[in-house]
Amino acid sequence: MLPTILDLEAVRAAYASGLTPLQMIDEIIARREASEDPAIFITQSSPDQLRIAARELMERAPEPNSLPLWGVPFAVKDNIDVAGLPTTAGCPAFAYEPVADATVVARLKAAGALVIGKTNLDQFATGLNGTRSPYGAPRSVFNRDYVSGGSSSGSAVAVGAGLASFALGTDTAGSGRVPAAFNNLVGIKPTPGLVPNVGVVPACRSVDVVTIFAATVGDGVAIRKVMEGYDAADPYSRKAIATTLPHQGLRIGVLDVSEREFFGNNEVEALYDTAIERALSLGATIVPFDYAPFRQAAELLYNGPWVAERLAAVTDFLATNAQDFDPTVRQIIEGAKAYDAVAAFEGQYKLGHLRQRADAEWAKVDILMLPTSPTTYTVDAMVADPIVKNSHFGRYTNFANLFGYAAIAVPGGFGATGLPNGVTLFGPAFSDDALAPFADALHRACASGMGKDRGAVLPEASMVTEPDDGFVPIVVVGAHLTGMPLNHELTGSGGRLIKSCRTAADYRLYVLPNTTPPKPGLIREPGYCGPGLEVEVWKVSPQAFGRFVQNIPAPLGIGKVTLDDGSQVSGFLCEPYALGNAREITALGGWRAYIASIRQAG
Amino acid sequence: MLPTILDLEAVRAAYASGLTPLQMIDEIIARREASEDPAIFITQSSPDQLRIAARELMERAPEPNSLPLWGVPFAVKDNIDVAGLPTTAGCPAFAYEPVADATVVARLKAAGALVIGKTNLDQFATGLNGTRSPYGAPRSVFNRDYVSGGSSSGSAVAVGAGLASFALGTDTAGSGRVPAAFNNLVGIKPTPGLVPNVGVVPACRSVDVVTIFAATVGDGVAIRKVMEGYDAADPYSRKAIATTLPHQGLRIGVLDVSEREFFGNNEVEALYDTAIERALSLGATIVPFDYAPFRQAAELLYNGPWVAERLAAVTDFLATNAQDFDPTVRQIIEGAKAYDAVAAFEGQYKLGHLRQRADAEWAKVDILMLPTSPTTYTVDAMVADPIVKNSHFGRYTNFANLFGYAAIAVPGGFGATGLPNGVTLFGPAFSDDALAPFADALHRACASGMGKDRGAVLPEASMVTEPDDGFVPIVVVGAHLTGMPLNHELTGSGGRLIKSCRTAADYRLYVLPNTTPPKPGLIREPGYCGPGLEVEVWKVSPQAFGRFVQNIPAPLGIGKVTLDDGSQVSGFLCEPYALGNAREITALGGWRAYIASIRQAG
Repeated sequence: MLPTILDLEAVRAAYASGLTPLQMIDEIIARREASEDPAIFITQSSPDQLRIAARELMERAPEPNSLPLWGVPFAVKDNIDVAGLPTTAGCPAFAYEPVADATVVARLKAAGALVIGKTNLDQFATGLNGTRSPYGAPRSVFNRDYVSGGSSSGSAVAVGAGLASFALGTDTAGSGRVPAAFNNLVGIKPTPGLVPNVGVVPACRSVDVVTIFAATVGDGVAIRKVMEGYDAADPYSRKAIATTLPHQGLRIGVLDVSEREFFGNNEVEALYDTAIERALSLGATIVPFDYAPFRQAAELLYNGPWVAERLAAVTDFLATNAQDFDPTVRQIIEGAKAYDAVAAFEGQYKLGHLRQRADAEWAKVDILMLPTSPTTYTVDAMVADPIVKNSHFGRYTNFANLFGYAAIAVPGGFGATGLPNGVTLFGPAFSDDALAPFADALHRACASGMGKDRGAVLPEASMVTEPDDGFVPIVVVGAHLTGMPLNHELTGSGGRLIKSCRTAADYRLYVLPNTTPPKPGLIREPGYCGPGLEVEVWKVSPQAFGRFVQNIPAPLGIGKVTLDDGSQVSGFLCEPYALGNAREITALGGWRAYIASIRQAG
Repeated sequence: MLPTILDLEAVRAAYASGLTPLQMIDEIIARREASEDPAIFITQSSPDQLRIAARELMERAPEPNSLPLWGVPFAVKDNIDVAGLPTTAGCPAFAYEPVADATVVARLKAAGALVIGKTNLDQFATGLNGTRSPYGAPRSVFNRDYVSGGSSSGSAVAVGAGLASFALGTDTAGSGRVPAAFNNLVGIKPTPGLVPNVGVVPACRSVDVVTIFAATVGDGVAIRKVMEGYDAADPYSRKAIATTLPHQGLRIGVLDVSEREFFGNNEVEALYDTAIERALSLGATIVPFDYAPFRQAAELLYNGPWVAERLAAVTDFLATNAQDFDPTVRQIIEGAKAYDAVAAFEGQYKLGHLRQRADAEWAKVDILMLPTSPTTYTVDAMVADPIVKNSHFGRYTNFANLFGYAAIAVPGGFGATGLPNGVTLFGPAFSDDALAPFADALHRACASGMGKDRGAVLPEASMVTEPDDGFVPIVVVGAHLTGMPLNHELTGSGGRLIKSCRTAADYRLYVLPNTTPPKPGLIREPGYCGPGLEVEVWKVSPQAFGRFVQNIPAPLGIGKVTLDDGSQVSGFLCEPYALGNAREITALGGWRAYIASIRQAG
């Protein structure tokens, strides 16, 4: 009844067909027991806990799919609090029993989702590879020799292996994106501040972000909407004002030749080129940009004072329990003791300068598209050289939270060795929703399945369409038509052409005398049966519409025009007094034909 | 020919009457020489330098007042670079010869202003009182026993004494506001990031702001507009998006009883209460709010890791020249060595929590009005207890730049002892322009003169009117009139009534059949001479206008209506086909009379 990958549409369909949450729980338990990877979970919700949660849901909301995430099983990275399960942050001696759910977990539970367990991670979320945990190293679902990516290692593998519909990660350097790439998943990294961090063990508190591993962009966005929203208890929580992006003709920044670095991995480089091809085929404009200021910001995250945030998060514990740390993690965190407050502020100044340089690059593009990780490594290779090889994974990720961007990691297909990789799309702060339609289209164009099921087809129902931007339609009939002298008033304010069509049959068209540029006048006469006039329907923002109407001179105005399909749309009308001696051109069928006729005549 | 206080209108009037910039320079030199306070300047522009600059201006722009600040004399705090004059930051051993003007100085010079010298300051801008300088302590222009306020001490006294039209200060804790209060001046403190800091010796680089001391709010705003604008060389420079405030019925936050602290100075407390009375009389709503989170943030600036920014600014110099520091300044700056990077980040977390609490207070108010300084002291008292008494001055100022607010310090009158004080208005980031009209109205209501001239009348021409908010006018004729059923569509979206008037005489008004609520139709008929119809002109935002037009049903629309004064304004029109059997009510003179007639009939 249930497919390998438990995307939201599959789960909803199963519930709609009669599956019960208790049966879902049994399935999850069976899949967990059959799992090939013993390192995914640190703590599993017990069968009893799972069944109690399922029964509680059925009492609270008996109707199947009556909550946004009704009965959806999810896993939680073990640096995020779930009441009733210990939080370890990947360090047994650090473990504590949280009394409350993290804000995001509470919101997901309220929406009907069921916690199936706490997942493994690079200790204290310090790492991008998945090998820095005393609970073992989760492996790529495609090849057990290879790392899963981290630090949200267990979360990504849980979803990629079909043990959960989605999983929560956290992302400071790239921990919500790199493991998505290595397990053929979507990684949703919200804008810092959009999703609250209350109840999350900090890594770098000023730049930590709770993320979502999901099978599709649509799933990830739907889940993020449940999680997001201001929480005053988080000092970095923000009341977001959504940023929009163009709906068509996105300018996508890609690595210029000088900044291409794949550490010898031609397979991943080829996947990146393929993603660029797909973006072109989807109508985007490709713009090589200078990655240098982003790379230099990325380098600051570990080679700069921000490591002191990692120390701030565990200062007391480190003083008493230094021997309980993963040696690499301890080495990194203790490195922070070299930084004084002057260095901390100087790091901020340096970041500020880099941000100004990065902003100059943003002037050329709408979004950035970068390799999620330039390469991957086996567990053995990573363990042998843990700091340098880990840093390779962060080459194209570490800047994102320092600069406050939204990001979505999208699968990019498989190389000949059978390992996947992907690309990450970056947008300005709070472009989270605006990024999603293109991310989803790119994912669908990739056709690489979901998680470990390479043959799975992305469900139609999870497709992400352009958000309703509140744009209003306007019918133009004369000088504002495409190619006519005033068309720029529509295009210049972000307007877009929706369709060409005709008015209803009861309109007449006249040439207004003494207008520059020449303009027609449209008049409705109920009962008259003419050819209908050629018009275009455009969409513009309410603000642009307001300015547009404001600038229309008498005798023209904006009322409602009835189209040939019977719909009534805002459009040009004319005061009748102006048409006394005007020439009627209704028979020509439209203004374009009239202009052609006088050009021919001239 | 020139009054005591050289406000911009006085200077412009003098130039318009034939004064030349060279004559202005002679006047400035004479006033400098006659000055009672020897501690105002660190370096004066020489007579030769002044005359060269004046001649250069006359060659570049011969026409009087042909540049925004044509021939306007100004002073520059000596931590801001002016090419040709040394920058000392109040420390002789630190002095250097800048090769270029600070960005703001270059912009002011380009606008025609003339630098008359570099002014004294609390060393490295560390202080709010004006006594921490080896160049002496400037004094209040009203009583030489009292401090001038600082750190921009010389700048405030220069303007207050009539030696310059305006002066630049810098403001980290409150250095652009406290000296304004003590010298009966306006202090314009822009939103951090609005005015670039390139060429300014940092105090706390992340929160430093260049400010303006001026005679009126109008002068200060005009000068700020010359100075503002993005500069990529400043890591904290931002591209501003202006924030608006309500034009009427401002909700003004004032200290609640528990947070009133004037350190025993009843005179200043009485001036604060008087300012509240004036705000009420100007139509504002007074809202006591909880100042605690703002106070706690204010305390962080000196009793927290931000002092490390002061150390970062002079690390190398301190290492070699510790003995060259003012002892109090040195003590403060060396205190920063106690802070490590962990403490720096923990300070940020604490500030973040306070910001969330402050934002909860902002939900109740549009702006804050606080005493600029709760008290003042004699120079002797300050020198005897320099750190504690200085901290008193910062009680209501220190939070502003940490939270990123705009502020304007406004004179508040004089106490019985003859010393002035004032209030500061705070608005959200980039409300700089929006704050100005109320600040100016409050200043005019105070009638306390300008600077040391307590009898001066503020010039009418510098009055600050509400900024053009881009609102568009719309003529309503029927159901949208005040008191009619659809009026809420205008008021609900922030619209405001501009005037009631009549249309031109050539309009006819009809009752549209079958409309709910009842609506009229307005038709123009050139040549017809009727009574003109009663209408109202409202103003709404372009966005609200767009939505409004979008929701108008056929046969109505928006075109241009000609009013009785001949102006053409967007307003309601009607398609002619709908009026075939409609009853004409032109003779009644308007819709309101028609509605009254049918009510009477009913």
